Amino acid sequence: MAKKENIVLVGAGNLATHLGIALKRSGHQIIQVYSPGGKTARLLAKTLGAESTGEIKKIRKDATLYIIAVKDDAIETVSGELHLKDQVVVHTSGSVKMNVLKKSSKNIGVLYPLQTFSKSQKTDFKNVPLCLESNSEAAAGLLAKVAGSISGHIQAVSSEQRRALHLSAVFACNFSNHMYRIAELILSSEKMSFDLLKPLIMETAEKVQNASPSVMQTGPAARGDLKTIKAHLKLLKHDKKLRSIYQLLSASIIETDKKL
Amino acid sequence: MAKKENIVLVGAGNLATHLGIALKRSGHQIIQVYSPGGKTARLLAKTLGAESTGEIKKIRKDATLYIIAVKDDAIETVSGELHLKDQVVVHTSGSVKMNVLKKSSKNIGVLYPLQTFSKSQKTDFKNVPLCLESNSEAAAGLLAKVAGSISGHIQAVSSEQRRALHLSAVFACNFSNHMYRIAELILSSEKMSFDLLKPLIMETAEKVQNASPSVMQTGPAARGDLKTIKAHLKLLKHDKKLRSIYQLLSASIIETDKKL
Repeated sequence: MAKKENIVLVGAGNLATHLGIALKRSGHQIIQVYSPGGKTARLLAKTLGAESTGEIKKIRKDATLYIIAVKDDAIETVSGELHLKDQVVVHTSGSVKMNVLKKSSKNIGVLYPLQTFSKSQKTDFKNVPLCLESNSEAAAGLLAKVAGSISGHIQAVSSEQRRALHLSAVFACNFSNHMYRIAELILSSEKMSFDLLKPLIMETAEKVQNASPSVMQTGPAARGDLKTIKAHLKLLKHDKKLRSIYQLLSASIIETDKKL
Repeated sequence: MAKKENIVLVGAGNLATHLGIALKRSGHQIIQVYSPGGKTARLLAKTLGAESTGEIKKIRKDATLYIIAVKDDAIETVSGELHLKDQVVVHTSGSVKMNVLKKSSKNIGVLYPLQTFSKSQKTDFKNVPLCLESNSEAAAGLLAKVAGSISGHIQAVSSEQRRALHLSAVFACNFSNHMYRIAELILSSEKMSFDLLKPLIMETAEKVQNASPSVMQTGPAARGDLKTIKAHLKLLKHDKKLRSIYQLLSASIIETDKKL
């Protein structure tokens, strides 16, 4: 086991909780958790055997790594209050520039976990790709060591790559889940359970684990079955918005196939 | 084990192959496989220990169940050539009316498997929901028995329900896969591997196995993060079509949340 680090968690939400637990399990010491007001920090600190604070000015200066896991809009403000020297400060966002941290310390970076986290579900960090960015060798080294201690998939990315990753994750995760939601709505309108679709959803996700989704595309649009597409659009005639989603995505599937 | 049936497979594509193998495993006898010309039928028949034919007029009359697994457009024509009395004839399509089979026999029905099948991937039928429709008690009884021998999830559905199921499957499976594809394109434009997204895709599918997707929605649109949405639209400025997909789906997520 590599040297364990003393870490401060700035933030006590979903991601901070999952990260804190994984870091502690890997032998690191979470020395302090901060949340505005301190209430959620107190709860998480208890789990992690850490101190907690609700005042940003009371954040300790003696950690080697500060992980800022707060809302995107709050990252710059919060980091501006840290006033550190060369301790490594990172945020965890897919879309916020690394440089918003520049007032906080000489060594800054990003630790962006490419996964979706929810309170109710445990996450095994071993399989979560951790995308790393940093402004110095010192930050890069520490980040790689700490990230590598909790996940088997660490990858250095540029700012442009991180932005593209985040955008692609919106399609692969958020928009897919929205497709599931629409499917659930359609089924409930005919008094059927979403359970019926669960095996299909799993299979669709499993199929792209070993092959490119471009090879795995099936359905009316993929086979140019205009008759079925028409029938589906007719079924959706009372819901203009769903209708335009169906239309746009079917056209996009046909278009993408042409390009291949 | 219930009585085994003598079955003719009309069609020898992906679904016929998967079904034939599952039926044989459950102890049924596939007595014949038909395909136009007979070439693919011969291959599948060999696997199943069945006869094969390429001539529709040579389809045997002594089976108890005829499963038509051909392209949607061909179902009516093919079934019109069968000229049976009361043997049960079913098709396997999500979107074709049961009644197109009415010339083939007195007893007709539909056996619609809610799953996506590919040549390269084995499918465990035990977990595939089989949606059944029929025009008579005789057909209903035989279908339930045969379908129940290969899957643990059989469900009687009306024509309207089957249509809604098929439409919902297009969203949950075909459109989700298209989202994966778009994500892959975005990553490749920044020279990154689709592998990075695989854990996220699995997690997204797994999360809705135990909870409604409406509870599991995350991402910029779900949290009303207009700044990130704007930044993403800017990233997509050179691809008008992707841009409109992003815009439409984000608006739909915001809209759906409002209705809850």
